[in-house]
Amino acid sequence: QWMMLEWKTKRPDMLSDLDPFGLGRIVEDGFVFRQNFSIRSYEIGADRTASVETLMNHLQETALNHVKHVGLLGDGFGSTPEMCKKNLFWVVTKMQVLVDRYPTWGDMVQVDTWVAASGKNGMRRDWMIRDCKTGEILTRASSNWVMMNKVTRRLSKIPDEVRAEIVQYFVDTPPLVDDDNIKLPKFDEKTADHVRNGLTPKWSDLDVNQHVNNVKYVGWILESAPQPVVENYELASMTLEYRRECMKDSVLQSLTSLLSNNNGGTGDSSHVDCQHLLRLEGGGGEIVKGRTKWRPKYANRFRGIEQFPTESG
Amino acid sequence: QWMMLEWKTKRPDMLSDLDPFGLGRIVEDGFVFRQNFSIRSYEIGADRTASVETLMNHLQETALNHVKHVGLLGDGFGSTPEMCKKNLFWVVTKMQVLVDRYPTWGDMVQVDTWVAASGKNGMRRDWMIRDCKTGEILTRASSNWVMMNKVTRRLSKIPDEVRAEIVQYFVDTPPLVDDDNIKLPKFDEKTADHVRNGLTPKWSDLDVNQHVNNVKYVGWILESAPQPVVENYELASMTLEYRRECMKDSVLQSLTSLLSNNNGGTGDSSHVDCQHLLRLEGGGGEIVKGRTKWRPKYANRFRGIEQFPTESG
Repeated sequence: QWMMLEWKTKRPDMLSDLDPFGLGRIVEDGFVFRQNFSIRSYEIGADRTASVETLMNHLQETALNHVKHVGLLGDGFGSTPEMCKKNLFWVVTKMQVLVDRYPTWGDMVQVDTWVAASGKNGMRRDWMIRDCKTGEILTRASSNWVMMNKVTRRLSKIPDEVRAEIVQYFVDTPPLVDDDNIKLPKFDEKTADHVRNGLTPKWSDLDVNQHVNNVKYVGWILESAPQPVVENYELASMTLEYRRECMKDSVLQSLTSLLSNNNGGTGDSSHVDCQHLLRLEGGGGEIVKGRTKWRPKYANRFRGIEQFPTESG
Repeated sequence: QWMMLEWKTKRPDMLSDLDPFGLGRIVEDGFVFRQNFSIRSYEIGADRTASVETLMNHLQETALNHVKHVGLLGDGFGSTPEMCKKNLFWVVTKMQVLVDRYPTWGDMVQVDTWVAASGKNGMRRDWMIRDCKTGEILTRASSNWVMMNKVTRRLSKIPDEVRAEIVQYFVDTPPLVDDDNIKLPKFDEKTADHVRNGLTPKWSDLDVNQHVNNVKYVGWILESAPQPVVENYELASMTLEYRRECMKDSVLQSLTSLLSNNNGGTGDSSHVDCQHLLRLEGGGGEIVKGRTKWRPKYANRFRGIEQFPTESG
């Protein structure tokens, strides 16, 4: 039932890769969902490039459309029919994103996504974003998901009936982004380099589950990133560990510390590493823990086109 | 040079209305720019319908693509080459949006936009959003724009060289939304029914001009709308008057008062009318003044398909 994911196309063939309605389709023998996005003017930031939130929105959209295209979309937002019957929904526990280059307004990108097993009771979902014109890899991402019961709010094993629905779509490939298990020092508002208080969800931040959407956390995490870093560096990679959900009434505190191996973010041309914590204000529970790596802006702007991976099958 | 806008298509012809790359095209003898959008999962809110911000984002995107498609996109964000030479850019002074029905995830909408003169030194831009499948009109919007000098930050007349670039695209039709010139009573944080303090722009709220994007104000304005209204009503129409720009360091205060003709928002099934003010905290300058009209949720959900306007030419 499990199969190797074969990368049949060495480079995207523009003619066969057209996605006339922008709604995506299944490729690679049914294991990969592929959708094209044109980057819109409101998806770019002050640098004229797509924000990392935009990229993550595209990841979410393809994940949901993947579930929809294989006919497994139940009532919920990505839940399968069997999950709906059992009051289960997916929660993301970890998200790792590597961005080689950010697309800009008018660029067309192609997002591929697929799923795999992750341990006994989890699922992994990977994504690859390419520039449609050149085939250049722009972004790679891996995420881990578990099931939560809507009523008890407890994590659940994957029931056999649900496994039967989804296992046929699992591929047997290693994660696109290696699992980053670095242990970081504990920190709080006294030891953090930068603290931003009083962050509150807006109505428009809520998704159909009445929770703050995963992607919204990214903006709050970056709010406590030091100004010189945000202005002179671009986000090269990010790891987020989701600890608990955030509701409409939560008041959040965002903490950031520079890690010691980064020259203190002094404008030196090397990378800057940060650790982040988003938590409930007043010393409350941890919502998201994160790490980010930043490179000087424009460093990747004029590189040559990346080579494609050779066929693995 | 000015022409009547003739609505040649009584209802959208699915075959000729395909927009294969989602990048839009010019129709109606060159006077209308048309672009299709599929509503994405991250563009809908807790109600599963597109937010008004999403619709306004689509309006912005089509406006910019219109300028791009007629070959007038200079260096700036919607500025023509002559405007760039003279350090001018467009600022919106008023935006009026009527929403008959909000689309939901997966719906495909068609946005038409065109421009017209507005007084001696202004431009009007209108939009119409339709459901691609049924042709039903979902949203109508009209906006007014003037030119500002980047250096002096003063409003400017439209220079002859700029007029020569754009006048050939002006249509001679009345605004799609009648200009709403109702004078509302003055109000401040003492007299307002609802006040929300400490609203601050995030990095991701800034656009390429390093200003807060027009659409972002909407979220802040709705932050002070009373909870029972937001929960039980949906926005039917909105008028925004933009007074001054907002920078990254601004701290904003959002004020809302219910207007007297609306039964106090008591859950009565009639409309609720509100007035809004977004201003700098501490009694500072007015950023945006607004009025909103709300109707009970689901009121428009099961209506019949609206008729199309008959040919006007």
